[in-house]
Amino acid sequence: MGFTCEVTVRLYDTDAAGFIFSGAQFRFAHESLENFLEHVGLPIAKIIRGRDVLFPVVHAEADYRAPLAVGDRLSVRVVVRALGDRSFSMGYRFFLADGREAGSVMTVHASVAAATGASCPLPEQVRTAFAPYLTTAT
Amino acid sequence: MGFTCEVTVRLYDTDAAGFIFSGAQFRFAHESLENFLEHVGLPIAKIIRGRDVLFPVVHAEADYRAPLAVGDRLSVRVVVRALGDRSFSMGYRFFLADGREAGSVMTVHASVAAATGASCPLPEQVRTAFAPYLTTAT
Amino acid sequence: MGFTCEVTVRLYDTDAAGFIFSGAQFRFAHESLENFLEHVGLPIAKIIRGRDVLFPVVHAEADYRAPLAVGDRLSVRVVVRALGDRSFSMGYRFFLADGREAGSVMTVHASVAAATGASCPLPEQVRTAFAPYLTTAT
Amino acid sequence: MGFTCEVTVRLYDTDAAGFIFSGAQFRFAHESLENFLEHVGLPIAKIIRGRDVLFPVVHAEADYRAPLAVGDRLSVRVVVRALGDRSFSMGYRFFLADGREAGSVMTVHASVAAATGASCPLPEQVRTAFAPYLTTAT
Repeated sequence: MGFTCEVTVRLYDTDAAGFIFSGAQFRFAHESLENFLEHVGLPIAKIIRGRDVLFPVVHAEADYRAPLAVGDRLSVRVVVRALGDRSFSMGYRFFLADGREAGSVMTVHASVAAATGASCPLPEQVRTAFAPYLTTAT
Repeated sequence: MGFTCEVTVRLYDTDAAGFIFSGAQFRFAHESLENFLEHVGLPIAKIIRGRDVLFPVVHAEADYRAPLAVGDRLSVRVVVRALGDRSFSMGYRFFLADGREAGSVMTVHASVAAATGASCPLPEQVRTAFAPYLTTAT
Repeated sequence: MGFTCEVTVRLYDTDAAGFIFSGAQFRFAHESLENFLEHVGLPIAKIIRGRDVLFPVVHAEADYRAPLAVGDRLSVRVVVRALGDRSFSMGYRFFLADGREAGSVMTVHASVAAATGASCPLPEQVRTAFAPYLTTAT
Repeated sequence: MGFTCEVTVRLYDTDAAGFIFSGAQFRFAHESLENFLEHVGLPIAKIIRGRDVLFPVVHAEADYRAPLAVGDRLSVRVVVRALGDRSFSMGYRFFLADGREAGSVMTVHASVAAATGASCPLPEQVRTAFAPYLTTAT
């Protein structure tokens, strides 16, 4: 089971070579993460304003399989790749309208106490909300 | 008559002061412009790929009336403020869910031949598509 | 008297039309502001971490006079355009290597108490540091 | 042997959680790549304007080891990690003033004919310029 949303390649995502700047794919992943968090009842505004536990990215990877141009609409499949004691991993796959995979992103997020910056256990609320989207399949 | 769309304040639009980085409001305006262009049948992908006439911004202004934070959903009212012989102006007003105006942007775009970079008449196709959205009211 | 620094147009500032995305000029202005603040002894890190008084942009304007492309080195002339009781204005002019003016930005910043978000008097420290750069000439 | 440059964490690199947005580290890597290309006599403006061979990122990885805040000055060590027949890999390590490693980025770039988008051999000019910076050490 997964979550699917849509992102659009905007002019500001592209560069003078005519296609997206490589960093833009992380923008798409982050926009999709915010959509996913909203979907599972954990809107990012609450996480940021709560200032209790934050989930900074500690590792990120991206693959680029097709050039993306302004106006391209991407269907994004979001899954939870791992749920650890003190971290979680997310996977994002980007598909063009014709079904081709344009690229993918994987991110690992640590669970960190906002007050101290120290590693802390993943809150049960996050574990419960994310569990249905956990999949080992790529 | 106007065109209305929605943009969401994303984490990458905010800065360490807790609210949006001022430049982000121009991102919202541009995203809204792309939505408007799609709505009037002139998708930006066609404009960019056509490489015939481009519409670079020659002047821009923004007012900021309320702090915007991650997760805020903005209703954007897009109007055409002026249709000149060789330029056009767009207006964008951003409203929070409670109806307060959070800010506004105004942009002036020149009509420029892509091949030479020289000023050129605004294409009739643009004039016709934009005319119904022309309003002198702010 | 003014302050001069240099910014470089990076690939991520450009878009698929081949020149800078209009919002990028505000990035150049902000980078120049941070350089100016450092120069006058008020590094932005201290302002943000101090969480005492913040200076959000309440109005911004930009003019674009020449297309800017990746690799262009801009000489930026930074001046203080106005020092009010509860606000200040900054001016930025961007010059290409051949002396042509590529564009300009003007920003108005309010003085705001971080704790309440309410308008507050401009701190004397800021007034003293900025005064030598105040000029009414454009 | 390596190339070292400096990047500064700007306010627009940070987000409302108080530290850099994870995508910003790729901005630092790209800025460093442009500095490196200039250093080895292959300025990116020439590559983009030449429209002969382009080097899009096909894979990217980043590790984040320390929170970065506005005003932090990073010393970036840039190395060439691999020189293939039709691709190359770059490594970037970011160090804080106290010597701690704040993070790292690795990118793989394909050699692509601009006209067709097809894979092509890495130009000899690139191989020669990059070879002195090739290192297998991390």
